[in-house]
Amino acid sequence: MLEYLMKIICDPKRINTSVAIRQQHSQDFTSYHEQHLPDVVLYPKNKEELRKIVAYANRIGCPIVPFGLGTSVEGQVVPIQGGISLNFTHMNRILEIREDDFAVRVEPGVTRIQLNQELKKYGLFFPVDPGVDATLGGMVATNASGCSAVRYGMMREQILGMEAILADGSFIHTGSLAKKSSAGYNLTHLLAGSEGTLAVFTELTLQVYGTPEEFLYAKVVFPDLKKACNAANRMLYRSIQPSKIELVDEYTIQAINSYKLTKYVAKPTLFLELSGWKSTVLAEWEQVKEIIQEEGAGEWSHTFDKAFGDQLWDARRHAALAIAASAPGKKLMTTDVCVPLSILPEAVIFTREVMQAEDLHGAILGHIGDGNYHAVFPIDMSLPEEVAKAEKVNELIVRFALERGGSCTGEHGVGLGKRKYLTEEHGDAVLWMKKIKEIFDPKSILNPGKIF
Amino acid sequence: MLEYLMKIICDPKRINTSVAIRQQHSQDFTSYHEQHLPDVVLYPKNKEELRKIVAYANRIGCPIVPFGLGTSVEGQVVPIQGGISLNFTHMNRILEIREDDFAVRVEPGVTRIQLNQELKKYGLFFPVDPGVDATLGGMVATNASGCSAVRYGMMREQILGMEAILADGSFIHTGSLAKKSSAGYNLTHLLAGSEGTLAVFTELTLQVYGTPEEFLYAKVVFPDLKKACNAANRMLYRSIQPSKIELVDEYTIQAINSYKLTKYVAKPTLFLELSGWKSTVLAEWEQVKEIIQEEGAGEWSHTFDKAFGDQLWDARRHAALAIAASAPGKKLMTTDVCVPLSILPEAVIFTREVMQAEDLHGAILGHIGDGNYHAVFPIDMSLPEEVAKAEKVNELIVRFALERGGSCTGEHGVGLGKRKYLTEEHGDAVLWMKKIKEIFDPKSILNPGKIF
Repeated sequence: MLEYLMKIICDPKRINTSVAIRQQHSQDFTSYHEQHLPDVVLYPKNKEELRKIVAYANRIGCPIVPFGLGTSVEGQVVPIQGGISLNFTHMNRILEIREDDFAVRVEPGVTRIQLNQELKKYGLFFPVDPGVDATLGGMVATNASGCSAVRYGMMREQILGMEAILADGSFIHTGSLAKKSSAGYNLTHLLAGSEGTLAVFTELTLQVYGTPEEFLYAKVVFPDLKKACNAANRMLYRSIQPSKIELVDEYTIQAINSYKLTKYVAKPTLFLELSGWKSTVLAEWEQVKEIIQEEGAGEWSHTFDKAFGDQLWDARRHAALAIAASAPGKKLMTTDVCVPLSILPEAVIFTREVMQAEDLHGAILGHIGDGNYHAVFPIDMSLPEEVAKAEKVNELIVRFALERGGSCTGEHGVGLGKRKYLTEEHGDAVLWMKKIKEIFDPKSILNPGKIF
Repeated sequence: MLEYLMKIICDPKRINTSVAIRQQHSQDFTSYHEQHLPDVVLYPKNKEELRKIVAYANRIGCPIVPFGLGTSVEGQVVPIQGGISLNFTHMNRILEIREDDFAVRVEPGVTRIQLNQELKKYGLFFPVDPGVDATLGGMVATNASGCSAVRYGMMREQILGMEAILADGSFIHTGSLAKKSSAGYNLTHLLAGSEGTLAVFTELTLQVYGTPEEFLYAKVVFPDLKKACNAANRMLYRSIQPSKIELVDEYTIQAINSYKLTKYVAKPTLFLELSGWKSTVLAEWEQVKEIIQEEGAGEWSHTFDKAFGDQLWDARRHAALAIAASAPGKKLMTTDVCVPLSILPEAVIFTREVMQAEDLHGAILGHIGDGNYHAVFPIDMSLPEEVAKAEKVNELIVRFALERGGSCTGEHGVGLGKRKYLTEEHGDAVLWMKKIKEIFDPKSILNPGKIF
């Protein structure tokens, strides 16, 4: 195999079989999923190399697992059947910025931070922000979202079209540069969120946005979780459109304070961002103020000061790292349910209650404007009891959400961790997903063992 | 066949084989597509009847063509191979309004006007408005959009989940009530826009929105098409977010004036709606005023007066009917390209030029905030030369769009009329669409001959 791959890539530096490098590609972001080494890590530098690699892998039946920055959390990048880990480091070119079309064309290895640095020059930005940095290819693959989805939507809503390589080594082009299309089946949205199981992306066309005129940042402390959740919902019911609205519980705040040396009050808190025309932002803030007072907010800060906002969002972005750092040596299990908006307050309370009932330490935080929140449990993988307890609580949280019309994963994807819930959520629809998988990837070489 | 269908439906009034009724189900909205009679028109009243009908049709290989209000324009409802026309008149129940979740569950025969009448009681509304009334099932099937898509998106962006019957007579449930999900392949977005070729919808879960506080309506007259288009684009570049921004050319205005007895100045015009908090709307209008003055707008009206707005949008909604009425006895051919925003002005100019060069009478209007516009040609179907001329111009317009990264259909769907462009737009991706069609509908009974 290596000999043949050498012929395709023609550069020994971009074919790596060292244990250290393979280990780097054996796991994802601080997550509890078991490591598996790939047989080899390849660093293709263009789509023609990629095409040859996929065609060859398909011929010999070798698994292919795309790897961006490895920041997935449900085991998406773990090569559980070995094979090739495809690293996109060298496919990180921004191919075109069409500022007058609010669109960009990028290679999948471009990261969201890299893209935003470039877009800044044009007064544009890319809104989807899952916290840590991530490649856009990875974000499309898992249909990532994060803090800004409440205003701008998920990755699926940003992707206009793509070029990808199918298992048979052929290219497929989906979508277009048009903002709307009703031309045939939507293959773009089928491939987005397919977690590397249907195709290997080679090029993405994404929507971008004009940077708002003004940003107002606020941090609002509440006496309890329920009041924080209620306040958030009431803002949405009044048609306030925050660009970010995040719930951060007292445990998360404690972890952030230790990790970032901030001195935030350790109580349930909303991190909030309003953006748009200054007059809009001020009008919205007046409404927000009324609501948070009625919901008994203990104290709050609000400001147009960018430094305050940067610190706030930096703290939020690194919350998972902060929680991980609060429990050295432990791995993180993260729930990711998304529930109907009206269910959110009781879902969060239920979550805290089952954690307490099971004596499971963990933090709750989330994108509550979408009904999507996370409970994060640091667990010691060497203690089967602790793992079992976390899995039990995770299951109760998922079941609570599914019974009320929610989803087992709002943004992390299925990967390995949510496979057991897929049929519970979708019933027989999963059979049709599998049939689609079979026609796109009959030998099951594309990220095998994921989703199903 | 009739005998068996009688056993399923048990109500002779809901099985119709009269020529008059079959003729009503033989064509779509004022369009140039050839009529074909179904063999029978069925009016199922619940999903169990529907399931039995589909299972039976699949067994005997009988075509099934869903029919809402028949307001598609690319022949989607025409039963070109005969068979069963499925009329959804009796499946028009609003099943649930979840006001606190901004979601509704409806049967596919509910129309958008019917839904909005009900939503009004809750201070909510459903934004997608393709002009004439239409069933929500039909709108999901064609991924319809219309005037409000510039702010709220297409049908695909409104649909959270659905229940549908597959060709084999089994039910499928996709999506959920959650606003976001990354749980497996997105079958919801695959079925939405599939034009009745993959499944028969039985229930839809849709997003709805809070009614904005204030609406500002404006009609702005420009000296020429180009200036009107430029002004629209410049608004978007300044991050103004109109809830509607429509281009209406002088021919459309003339047709509207005759049809509605309005006295609008017959020049290229923008119909505009800003909505949101009053302060936002006013701030946006100040920006709009600056832009339209710089682009040489001749005159404009702007007002918060609902009566003015109602007349304006009523005129826009009935533009197609007005154009049809301006040419009695003729049928309408309507182009529907969607181009990247920056291309819009030149695409519209090109369209006017080829119409003039070919001496083809017609109107141009469209949702220019999305890059989606229509040229509407009234044609005498008994004159082959006229038909050929219109088809030639249509083709030139489509090719112009495709060469610049656009789509052949922004909102009308493929149906019969755009089939010839599908491969030109999507290349080999069409083969994969066909493979999906084959697994979902191996006997090709679901709206056969459409899309492909």
